[in-house]
Amino acid sequence: MNTDSSPETPTPDLEHYRVTGYSPGGNAVSRILWYYVNALIFNSALFPIYGLKRALLRWFGAQIGKGVVIKPDVNIKYPWRLKVGDFSWIGEGVHIDNLANVAIGANACLSQDAYLLTGNHDYSSTKFTLITGEIVLEDGAWVGARSIVCPGRTMRRNAILTAGSVLTRDAEANGIYAGNPAVLVRQRSIRPLG
Amino acid sequence: MNTDSSPETPTPDLEHYRVTGYSPGGNAVSRILWYYVNALIFNSALFPIYGLKRALLRWFGAQIGKGVVIKPDVNIKYPWRLKVGDFSWIGEGVHIDNLANVAIGANACLSQDAYLLTGNHDYSSTKFTLITGEIVLEDGAWVGARSIVCPGRTMRRNAILTAGSVLTRDAEANGIYAGNPAVLVRQRSIRPLG
Amino acid sequence: MNTDSSPETPTPDLEHYRVTGYSPGGNAVSRILWYYVNALIFNSALFPIYGLKRALLRWFGAQIGKGVVIKPDVNIKYPWRLKVGDFSWIGEGVHIDNLANVAIGANACLSQDAYLLTGNHDYSSTKFTLITGEIVLEDGAWVGARSIVCPGRTMRRNAILTAGSVLTRDAEANGIYAGNPAVLVRQRSIRPLG
Repeated sequence: MNTDSSPETPTPDLEHYRVTGYSPGGNAVSRILWYYVNALIFNSALFPIYGLKRALLRWFGAQIGKGVVIKPDVNIKYPWRLKVGDFSWIGEGVHIDNLANVAIGANACLSQDAYLLTGNHDYSSTKFTLITGEIVLEDGAWVGARSIVCPGRTMRRNAILTAGSVLTRDAEANGIYAGNPAVLVRQRSIRPLG
Repeated sequence: MNTDSSPETPTPDLEHYRVTGYSPGGNAVSRILWYYVNALIFNSALFPIYGLKRALLRWFGAQIGKGVVIKPDVNIKYPWRLKVGDFSWIGEGVHIDNLANVAIGANACLSQDAYLLTGNHDYSSTKFTLITGEIVLEDGAWVGARSIVCPGRTMRRNAILTAGSVLTRDAEANGIYAGNPAVLVRQRSIRPLG
Repeated sequence: MNTDSSPETPTPDLEHYRVTGYSPGGNAVSRILWYYVNALIFNSALFPIYGLKRALLRWFGAQIGKGVVIKPDVNIKYPWRLKVGDFSWIGEGVHIDNLANVAIGANACLSQDAYLLTGNHDYSSTKFTLITGEIVLEDGAWVGARSIVCPGRTMRRNAILTAGSVLTRDAEANGIYAGNPAVLVRQRSIRPLG
């Protein structure tokens, strides 16, 4: 490992940064259209109409289940990389930064300001190469308010990430994760009859 | 405790989610009106006029003291559940998500992007029942930038929550809390004459 | 140390709060103009035009290098207190709250929602005196998504602050810092030829 911290250490060369081996999907027209639909209708509080938002997401290629709730001020990068199961909730201020696919199961909950982050960079390369990682949130998972799910992470069935926490590893089924980085702090149990 | 993580574990049933035993207060008209006043005037940077905001909050039922400062991009859920004492500051980007009452004393400071969170869910029930908890910030309390106060928590007189921290327990008078979850790291002393 | 937590402890006296020994720079007209340019063009997604933003920042007194990328929804307090080196990136949702000077080197990256915080208050004084601290991010530094750099901190060449972390001390060259408060967790090495 190079621990040389002298000024001679190279920095990333962002002048020559290029995105290679990655495609945003969609096409140029749909990307521009979505950019403004997202800015004006989703990432806004003026149109709190779930049905309209579900229809728009589907029209742009997202797979959106029945009864999905989409609160105000939501920011979604690419709908064609988004799948949300029946009756899941996307809370106020949620940011789904899905350069890579994000698959959310049914009855999942993303609370206010939750951030799903799929992009990273190779910090050991002067090319600062873009690295993307898909996120999977299985049925019943709950991403707490202001928490962050890091690129490539999976939250298994019913896993919980508590408010303000940062998930840097996968979350096992029924596990409750807290902290930065989040660690398993307890198990979730769900009473079958209520 | 059920630690069964097999696919057979039930998930919350959000299809049949109902809010029971909770009322948002106000009435349907005031809730809709406030929704847009909040979106257009409070959660915006275009009208940086403290007096106007204090007047609007009072008109919608909030108890707002003298000289309260309300910076741009503030998001307040229900003004009729808000009480703010004299000369307190509500910083830029603050989110007071007061499903339940939030009582802020005098000379308190909520720094930029501070989040007061009053809503939770019973994650051990398939009903995912809404649980709300009131927040109390006593005189002189300081909620740091980008920090989170969790539902039901009290910060006693002059307590401090540092930037980016998450308060999951009550904060004692003059205590300085940091981290996620925040822990008591030092005592605050205030010189009487300056 | 006074650990008296009785009600008699004085609180800050925000009624008589005055900013002394500090000037925001610019002049009254440029501050008002910038306030609205920032609100309408920078802290918005509607004008994703890097060249326009670089030109505006320079016109308001910022020193902005070649090829600097400025994504949507960026919030900059005072451009006359901002210096950004060639080819650096200012990501979506970044908040540069530069009451004091912020100097960013070349090839640096501020990821989404990163927060550069330069203002603090003397919490041991009833005057709650404003304390500002300059931030320096040297060449190649990377401030991760949703992370916070606290007032007065420096990140040396190629230092990294990981997503959601809070930097309360200086970051040494090539150090990778994580957590709240962030601690040095590993060294960054960069391959000279890619």
